Amino acid sequence: MKNLTMLVDFYEFTMANGFYVHGHKDTKAVFEMFYRKNPDRGGYVIAAGLEQLIDFVSDMHFTEEDIDYLRKKRIFDEGFLDYLKEFRFRGTIEAVPEGTIVYPGTPLVTVTGNVIECQLLETFLLLTINHQSLIATKANRICRAAGDGIVMEFGARRAQGPDAAVLGARAAYIGGCHATATVLADQMYGVNAIGTMAHSWIQFFSSEEEAFRAYAETYPDDCTLLIDTYDIIKGAQCAVKVAKEVLEPKGKRLKGVRIDSGDLAYFSKKLRALFDENGMEDCKIVVSNSIDEWLLNSMKTQGARIDSYGIGERLITAKSDPVFGGVYKLVAVEEEGKLTPRIKISENEEKITNPGKKVLWRLFNKTSGIGYADVLTLEEEHLDEGGSFYVIDPKKPWKHILIDNSVAVRLQKTIFDNGKLVYNKPRLEDIRKYVKDQIENTVWEEELRLENPHVHYVDLSEKIYQIKSQMLQEAGKKLN
Amino acid sequence: MKNLTMLVDFYEFTMANGFYVHGHKDTKAVFEMFYRKNPDRGGYVIAAGLEQLIDFVSDMHFTEEDIDYLRKKRIFDEGFLDYLKEFRFRGTIEAVPEGTIVYPGTPLVTVTGNVIECQLLETFLLLTINHQSLIATKANRICRAAGDGIVMEFGARRAQGPDAAVLGARAAYIGGCHATATVLADQMYGVNAIGTMAHSWIQFFSSEEEAFRAYAETYPDDCTLLIDTYDIIKGAQCAVKVAKEVLEPKGKRLKGVRIDSGDLAYFSKKLRALFDENGMEDCKIVVSNSIDEWLLNSMKTQGARIDSYGIGERLITAKSDPVFGGVYKLVAVEEEGKLTPRIKISENEEKITNPGKKVLWRLFNKTSGIGYADVLTLEEEHLDEGGSFYVIDPKKPWKHILIDNSVAVRLQKTIFDNGKLVYNKPRLEDIRKYVKDQIENTVWEEELRLENPHVHYVDLSEKIYQIKSQMLQEAGKKLN
Repeated sequence: MKNLTMLVDFYEFTMANGFYVHGHKDTKAVFEMFYRKNPDRGGYVIAAGLEQLIDFVSDMHFTEEDIDYLRKKRIFDEGFLDYLKEFRFRGTIEAVPEGTIVYPGTPLVTVTGNVIECQLLETFLLLTINHQSLIATKANRICRAAGDGIVMEFGARRAQGPDAAVLGARAAYIGGCHATATVLADQMYGVNAIGTMAHSWIQFFSSEEEAFRAYAETYPDDCTLLIDTYDIIKGAQCAVKVAKEVLEPKGKRLKGVRIDSGDLAYFSKKLRALFDENGMEDCKIVVSNSIDEWLLNSMKTQGARIDSYGIGERLITAKSDPVFGGVYKLVAVEEEGKLTPRIKISENEEKITNPGKKVLWRLFNKTSGIGYADVLTLEEEHLDEGGSFYVIDPKKPWKHILIDNSVAVRLQKTIFDNGKLVYNKPRLEDIRKYVKDQIENTVWEEELRLENPHVHYVDLSEKIYQIKSQMLQEAGKKLN
Repeated sequence: MKNLTMLVDFYEFTMANGFYVHGHKDTKAVFEMFYRKNPDRGGYVIAAGLEQLIDFVSDMHFTEEDIDYLRKKRIFDEGFLDYLKEFRFRGTIEAVPEGTIVYPGTPLVTVTGNVIECQLLETFLLLTINHQSLIATKANRICRAAGDGIVMEFGARRAQGPDAAVLGARAAYIGGCHATATVLADQMYGVNAIGTMAHSWIQFFSSEEEAFRAYAETYPDDCTLLIDTYDIIKGAQCAVKVAKEVLEPKGKRLKGVRIDSGDLAYFSKKLRALFDENGMEDCKIVVSNSIDEWLLNSMKTQGARIDSYGIGERLITAKSDPVFGGVYKLVAVEEEGKLTPRIKISENEEKITNPGKKVLWRLFNKTSGIGYADVLTLEEEHLDEGGSFYVIDPKKPWKHILIDNSVAVRLQKTIFDNGKLVYNKPRLEDIRKYVKDQIENTVWEEELRLENPHVHYVDLSEKIYQIKSQMLQEAGKKLN
């Protein structure tokens, strides 16, 4: 992997240098990464991108060239530039494992370290978690809409840059896709790469039939033909002919056909009938052409007969909602050797933060196994010891909710402990399974709706709620 | 740069292998890359991403590891894999220079070579041109809406992967942005990187005033303060105080303040008045927070007093229309030593292609200098020799349009000539100037509207129109 340490917003350096010259190079701070809104008005997000954060942090360092670049800006202290020469990340990172279903307002990643190192990783941390969580979540929505259908990620050509193609394929696989078209994603991450032909294959030969024959001869064991280069019904008839004349005499079968234009729902039904009449019940119908979860749902409602979906631009860019707005906020600063909570107030109420370093718990109902609520507590509060306890829904603070018949599970794992990587990165396959398992077994069905889902409870412990209320009141007094 | 040769759709390999085993490894083909619709219902696109295509093509090769990977798929011919070992791109690429204003249906890139090499670069070609043209175009829309205002690209944290941040900053600069927050884009491409502080800087200190003082002391020559961490008006008053007490006694000025939340238009007016009352007419007002060309226009209508804009997520992802749908289509194939036109027909009429290798000309009015129409001709037709000639608008083919008082300029340059790079990549600065020059001098004002622009004329020479009509008729007969 290339060194991406300099993939950082310039203001991280102006701040870091400022902290340095003001004597704060060893002052501890805590930052939390969280997000405010589920994409596409959905009910949840699938956290992803942690592996790339781990690689980034493990490799963080500044070369002589980097230091020279900064020196030429003529605003940085020489002591600070010297400090950067020796810089390595020596802080602590806790994070939810990749594939964890998460909700707005909960810390996906928590960074504890000196304020400089905390700042210098901000940009990349946000970039990787925002991007891959966005795509994994979108893929999951599409795959759920596809039900038993196979979903293939086909979007490289419309991806926003090379990494978006490759890491997007990785995230899409986490979210549930079965394969990708992008070869490099297979080489680098083991996402199975597949593909057959473009329209150019058909156009190249002097007739569609010649093109189909050539392909069937070359790939008798895995022959899917693209049938919409000239006319879909004629193309399908031609595919049947080639199946009968080239494949079946050898004991092979036509695996499938793909349609990439026209009325996909309509033609899928026509073709299903045509293939069935010809004893080709096993010939799969694959469709592509700007599909997403909404179109997929609509095609199902119309009784379309589709076996697999090639999903391109609308997945790889998360077209319907292409920004995942994760933020990274300072929640505590060391003062006289003690971490003191910090709050950000804002004219936009939803931008007010929850102060203090928090622990994220998920409450699972002991009977159903459903993870029905998340709770944020202070570090010293241990919900996992069982028993019953009170939490507060910050939107309805007058209700003190008694928790019972529940198991509380701490969702974050320690990734780096004082600079040392202490976490074993799971295999991609296992991350994907983890997603599937949660969706099938522990997420409330009502949270899975594509729109208007049940809003997951994210409650505060009474202690955190008190700290927040007190800080808001004090800030209010100061301002007046 | 990392070798991205394997960033390719798997079907390029199945097709390439198929062409190889069917004896077509030396058969010539011509592919054209074009797009069908301007993003955001705009009037034009700024072509970008060619430099990365050049780097990619120059470096195209397959390693032993790549060959092994393919061999393990057990579907590729050993002769083909041997062929890949020696593979280098030896074809010809013609393309419009980066920064060229382009229109739907015109070839941005034309690739002539053996059909295998033409296929193997498809994915990357589309990816780089699609991505950077999308962002350059979006940036240009935003910068035009900003008028004299300074536009800074701030989006790395919401970019779709590391490359999207860095190459996105490059493309945004081409489109007209003045600077970026992304340091790596400065190091790699010379896009000036700038930045001051995040909310965390303010929260870190025990008061906003202390934070402002610390920053002003560290950066007296370039001090922009973020004023919305607690309360915008109080923050602005505090900034005035610090300007008076820390900066002005040293003969320095407060360069600006930034607002990142709240009602930006309203507060910009309030703050302008406050600063002016305090003799700080030179203090700039910078705003950020999910801004795009529409919001920018709306703030202007409201009389907002804003000097510069930090544009993040809505630019770096082109949020309102994040897919640029460039395609790459086979237009001619060698038959008996001669290039023969190919057409793709489709159930979707807009997907029917213009057959044959085409030359793209722009007609400039000799009096006004406006580039008022594009014309596609065959290679042997030379419009630049002046004189008058007829063209056909394919939407109104009954009109034969006489061209006169015009200079015809061939827009594509030869980039690779039989595998040899013959093009000098222009400096980024010059690409940006080229964009500015076209927008100011040669593009019809009516094409610059954000919405409902004049639709640029893209006409065909009579010869091309005849070939297309004939091929469509023949195809129609064949199908019936």
